[in-house]
Amino acid sequence: MENYLIYLVPVIGVAAILFTFYKTAWITKQPQGNEKMIKISNFIYEGAMAFIKAEYKILAIFVVSVAILLALTTGTETSHPLVAFSFVAGAFCSGLAGFIGLRIATRANVRTTNAARTSLNQALKVAFAGGSVMGLSVVGLGILGLSILFIVYAQMFGVESFDSLNKVLSIVTGFSFGASSIALFSRVGGGIFTKAADVGADLVGKVEAGIPEDHPLNPATVADNVGDNVGDVAGMGADLFESYVGSIIAAMVLGAAFMISPDFIDGFGGLSPVLLPLFLAGAGIFASIVGTFFVRVKEGGNPQTALNMGELVSAGIMIVFSYIIISFVLPSSWVFTDPLYTAADGSPLVREISSFNIFLASIIGLVAGLIIGYSTEFFTGLNYLPVRIIAHQSTSGSATNIISGLGIGMLSTIIPILTIAVAIVLVFHLSGLYGIAIAAVGMLSNLGIQLSVDAYGPISDNAGGIAEMSELPEEVREKTDKLDAVGNTTAAIGKGFAIGSAALTALALFGAYMTAAKITTIDVSKSTVIAAVFLGALMPYVFSALTIKAVSDAAQSMIEEVRRQFQTIEPLKKALEVMKRNSEQGTHQSMYSEKDMKIMNDAEGTPEYGKCVTISTRAALRQMILPGVIAVSVPVIIGLTMGAEALGGLLAGVTVSGVLLAIFQSNSGGSWDNAKKLIEKGIVYKGEKFGKGSEAHKASVVGDTVGDPLKDTSGPSLNILLKLVSIVALVLAGSAF
Amino acid sequence: MENYLIYLVPVIGVAAILFTFYKTAWITKQPQGNEKMIKISNFIYEGAMAFIKAEYKILAIFVVSVAILLALTTGTETSHPLVAFSFVAGAFCSGLAGFIGLRIATRANVRTTNAARTSLNQALKVAFAGGSVMGLSVVGLGILGLSILFIVYAQMFGVESFDSLNKVLSIVTGFSFGASSIALFSRVGGGIFTKAADVGADLVGKVEAGIPEDHPLNPATVADNVGDNVGDVAGMGADLFESYVGSIIAAMVLGAAFMISPDFIDGFGGLSPVLLPLFLAGAGIFASIVGTFFVRVKEGGNPQTALNMGELVSAGIMIVFSYIIISFVLPSSWVFTDPLYTAADGSPLVREISSFNIFLASIIGLVAGLIIGYSTEFFTGLNYLPVRIIAHQSTSGSATNIISGLGIGMLSTIIPILTIAVAIVLVFHLSGLYGIAIAAVGMLSNLGIQLSVDAYGPISDNAGGIAEMSELPEEVREKTDKLDAVGNTTAAIGKGFAIGSAALTALALFGAYMTAAKITTIDVSKSTVIAAVFLGALMPYVFSALTIKAVSDAAQSMIEEVRRQFQTIEPLKKALEVMKRNSEQGTHQSMYSEKDMKIMNDAEGTPEYGKCVTISTRAALRQMILPGVIAVSVPVIIGLTMGAEALGGLLAGVTVSGVLLAIFQSNSGGSWDNAKKLIEKGIVYKGEKFGKGSEAHKASVVGDTVGDPLKDTSGPSLNILLKLVSIVALVLAGSAF
Repeated sequence: MENYLIYLVPVIGVAAILFTFYKTAWITKQPQGNEKMIKISNFIYEGAMAFIKAEYKILAIFVVSVAILLALTTGTETSHPLVAFSFVAGAFCSGLAGFIGLRIATRANVRTTNAARTSLNQALKVAFAGGSVMGLSVVGLGILGLSILFIVYAQMFGVESFDSLNKVLSIVTGFSFGASSIALFSRVGGGIFTKAADVGADLVGKVEAGIPEDHPLNPATVADNVGDNVGDVAGMGADLFESYVGSIIAAMVLGAAFMISPDFIDGFGGLSPVLLPLFLAGAGIFASIVGTFFVRVKEGGNPQTALNMGELVSAGIMIVFSYIIISFVLPSSWVFTDPLYTAADGSPLVREISSFNIFLASIIGLVAGLIIGYSTEFFTGLNYLPVRIIAHQSTSGSATNIISGLGIGMLSTIIPILTIAVAIVLVFHLSGLYGIAIAAVGMLSNLGIQLSVDAYGPISDNAGGIAEMSELPEEVREKTDKLDAVGNTTAAIGKGFAIGSAALTALALFGAYMTAAKITTIDVSKSTVIAAVFLGALMPYVFSALTIKAVSDAAQSMIEEVRRQFQTIEPLKKALEVMKRNSEQGTHQSMYSEKDMKIMNDAEGTPEYGKCVTISTRAALRQMILPGVIAVSVPVIIGLTMGAEALGGLLAGVTVSGVLLAIFQSNSGGSWDNAKKLIEKGIVYKGEKFGKGSEAHKASVVGDTVGDPLKDTSGPSLNILLKLVSIVALVLAGSAF
Repeated sequence: MENYLIYLVPVIGVAAILFTFYKTAWITKQPQGNEKMIKISNFIYEGAMAFIKAEYKILAIFVVSVAILLALTTGTETSHPLVAFSFVAGAFCSGLAGFIGLRIATRANVRTTNAARTSLNQALKVAFAGGSVMGLSVVGLGILGLSILFIVYAQMFGVESFDSLNKVLSIVTGFSFGASSIALFSRVGGGIFTKAADVGADLVGKVEAGIPEDHPLNPATVADNVGDNVGDVAGMGADLFESYVGSIIAAMVLGAAFMISPDFIDGFGGLSPVLLPLFLAGAGIFASIVGTFFVRVKEGGNPQTALNMGELVSAGIMIVFSYIIISFVLPSSWVFTDPLYTAADGSPLVREISSFNIFLASIIGLVAGLIIGYSTEFFTGLNYLPVRIIAHQSTSGSATNIISGLGIGMLSTIIPILTIAVAIVLVFHLSGLYGIAIAAVGMLSNLGIQLSVDAYGPISDNAGGIAEMSELPEEVREKTDKLDAVGNTTAAIGKGFAIGSAALTALALFGAYMTAAKITTIDVSKSTVIAAVFLGALMPYVFSALTIKAVSDAAQSMIEEVRRQFQTIEPLKKALEVMKRNSEQGTHQSMYSEKDMKIMNDAEGTPEYGKCVTISTRAALRQMILPGVIAVSVPVIIGLTMGAEALGGLLAGVTVSGVLLAIFQSNSGGSWDNAKKLIEKGIVYKGEKFGKGSEAHKASVVGDTVGDPLKDTSGPSLNILLKLVSIVALVLAGSAF
């Protein structure tokens, strides 16, 4: 390890963290608005903090138990008890990133609301600053943790020989395992929390009691807003933290195979392909930070353009950097003997790899991510045919709305799967498995700014909720809605990257696993292997069934709690009657009689928000355990009882089935959601008009409610499931086979 | 071919056909009832015949085109243009079996109705006789076609050497390809027909116009009853014909591998493992015929017991026969060198196979089928927890009804997949791939009686419809309902066998394919193979999306046609008004005023049934083409462009993903259906009662409508898809690789 450049990587990580400190300080300095806004935002903040503390307590027990197990079982030739330490470090960094994101999001929300009282640009600035704290703390902590562990272990064990390097990497892998575990629990727990609160708030509040969304008299409304933060901010952050870390580690492990090539004696030694993913990730952080400065909008301008500009600039920088770094770090071409594959005649397979092909692989990854993203946007976006079809089918009732949404969801798997299949074959042809890992790294390298945009969405959404609950003038809500809406396309593209990178990372980990487990085929014509493929393909179904059931049970408890409060809290009961009577007479809240206003004022603050938060918290924490335990234990059981090749079959099954089921569920849910929004805007079908309150609208609300757990809980959790299973296999391979 | 026993096999086939002639004659002799019944049953008969003629015209074009293609491309060393002849023979036999079943079902239905006017036992006898004509013509034609082709080709090319035997078998495989093609089109076409008519009749007739199910004034009601016949009788018959033929051929191809074992010089020569599946199937026909004589019930007795007794007796006979035949035909044990697998150290794998282990394989197949069947019954049956959960969730609306049904459907995949995985590992361990094929043959050997029971269901259902349309006294309908209800458990178990046998047959074909394509691994760690696995797993999603969309488009046309007739046919319009007015006043049809009765009588016969039948026919025929073409062409394209091993990956992907998606869709649909029926019977949840007409009932109707295309069109079609893809691969392997 004579090369100084590796030390630059943690420095960039630290820079990212410093950047988040600077942004956090700036956000905290912004004014929070009036007393009511502060009070409500404190409710949300406290609810979120209470949830995450309770969650982390449970996770701590899990992390410690697994760490002890790892420490006890990893004393073999190729593994080391330090895996347990890496595991704890990965879990800690992932948890910390989630915590930082959650804390800043629950502070930025009210400040965004307040800024929206005066200026759209200022509101965008605050919300995006909040998002960028999340984005850059994820990539900063990811790269900091990974690079420091690698440097320390490299000093301890040496990286001069192929074996010692492999040992170092197998220990570093524990970091990814820790991150995956936290990600799974955060995604599942956060997903259950947010959808239980959402469904509860909607079904009783909006539908039964007829009060508007985010109304302060709805007891579940705070829980709903807390849910947006713990699900869409903390859950998503942990999810992408682990994609990021997983793809980098997979590329490092596969890069180690090149060490045996004689061409690597010079330059960075055999290490350069191992370090390349770290360098690319570091460059991505720089590109992301630069990109954030381009997100600015003049008053009256379009926030979408601002976000696009930020992403475009950082993508452009990244492409140039990738080319420079890859050309500089790698020899222009080299010959190596593939450890996994043999030529058709059975002789060792000698490949010539060029650095330009590896650059191409990273570009193909980027393009594939974009294609998947735009196809997601097409199938779920407001302005395209599929959502319009669902909206039209809603005019003949809920049944046809549901059927067409299911059909659209299934159909929407075509483009992503074709893209993934073509990318695999193309990239593999160009540069082997290493290229596939680099393609995944390429997709995620400017995650910093992608995630900033993703996290900006729920912050704007929350800002709108606070505006509503604080009864601010309507134009404030309009501004926050505008901010929220523009994030959607970008979010759809982000989803495409998440799914695409999960598939590629899982495949790369697949190769890393085979290297570690010392197997050269995963032959599905063997009975144990095909049986394991069946079992792997089953996992996403079971996992989805459990998370869907969890949401529906938790929503049921929430519904009952909200009903109870409406029936037993007297001032609240009276206020609901007032609202119902006035709404039937068509009287707006600003025109209420004095007596009615008094009743409304008396009711203020009487809903027991905390109880709803507690219900969601308890349900989420209780129900995230079984899916999590299944995800970790099934690969261990299969590996130990059926052998290394069968475990490979399990990975193949879970990856293929998981990607398909995830796309199907996410896109069905997304298209139902937007079909509802389209009808709310008003549609004309066969000469008839349908809008808010029409039968078609009611049918579309059913679709939206069905889609909620699919798109926000079970669908996204599958991304993590398939990577977690691969990582567990990889860790197991180091110690058991 | 000196062994005379093989000539017994076509004799048994002829016996089965003679049995169906005898039964047909008996049924035709039964009285048809009054003029109205005859008139209505003629409508159904003519509609069914019109559909099947139109369908077969299109299929004839497809069959001839593919046959020409096959004849032109199969002149290689291992293949022969006669494949084209086998293909046509298979298509013809499958089509003939479907036609015979359809014709007898549309004759037995009205005679069952008439019998139900006097005696439950007599009605059961007629309906079951109709079912047994279907059941035995499927197995009879299947075995007759297969054995005659095998005998003729064996005379032509000889079966003394391994190579010539393989050539004979590769030509015979065309028979299965023909059967699969017809099965796919019949299932998809029939499924689209029946569900379009069903949804159209229900949504406009029952829900909008408020007239009872199967009412003669509903223009779509004849189409609905035609649909039951073309979907559930002809479609299902073709489906199981091809499972039956496919499993036998897979076992024959795999059995040929044993020929190289020296132990086979005596006895039947190396041929005995090749002939064994034919012998077992022949014994199964005998067992089925004997079983039919045990289906009898005394007046007041339980028809369920009668059906169970028939199945039990034939299963018992079959187990004994299997043991005797296997012990007699095969040496008690022999040693053979596996052509596909090598030992761990790379040396050739020498297995010792015992005839007892092969017997065990057939028993494991039977037990696995039963387990899958009972788990289907548990997840979709009226009397178990899952359906009760869905019924309870219906009390909070359509959204929760749908969510819980989706969750239950996903969860219901666990037991079948675990069973399949365990069966694969166990059977393979006992007796290799050949054992897996024999297990599938074991599952389907007494298909004769299973299918008789399956086909008896729609006949009883139709009989009820005719009773309603002919306005017979209510007790007649009660009797036919009782007959219909008891078939349900047996049908669920039949479904389990269909799915289980499809999975095992596909796997066995997988092995047969590898032998034919001369590949020894299907290694998913190769980029083209894993890409093909992705593409294979995608196929069931695309296929389901297309068939779901087809049903929903066709239903839309049907809805519009029924609405048009209600609005433009004057006597019909007036009669609907009379019914509405009287129903609001609570007046039963028997109590109508004289004037109202006159209006009702005037309306009789005015609905244009034929137009609705035409709409369903056109939609079904137009929309079955694309899915069919995809199923046949994708494996050819993948095989030719990506190679033999990638095509193996496609098979693995389509099998695993198809089985899961089929179980998920069938069971979600089945559980929604029964949740509706449960609520119609009346449920109590949290102290409240919910029954017909309640909000919970309306919610459950939405679930039932959503489930209809899933359980009766897209779900069952997937069974065929995965076998068809395997068969296409197998045929391709003989000529292209």
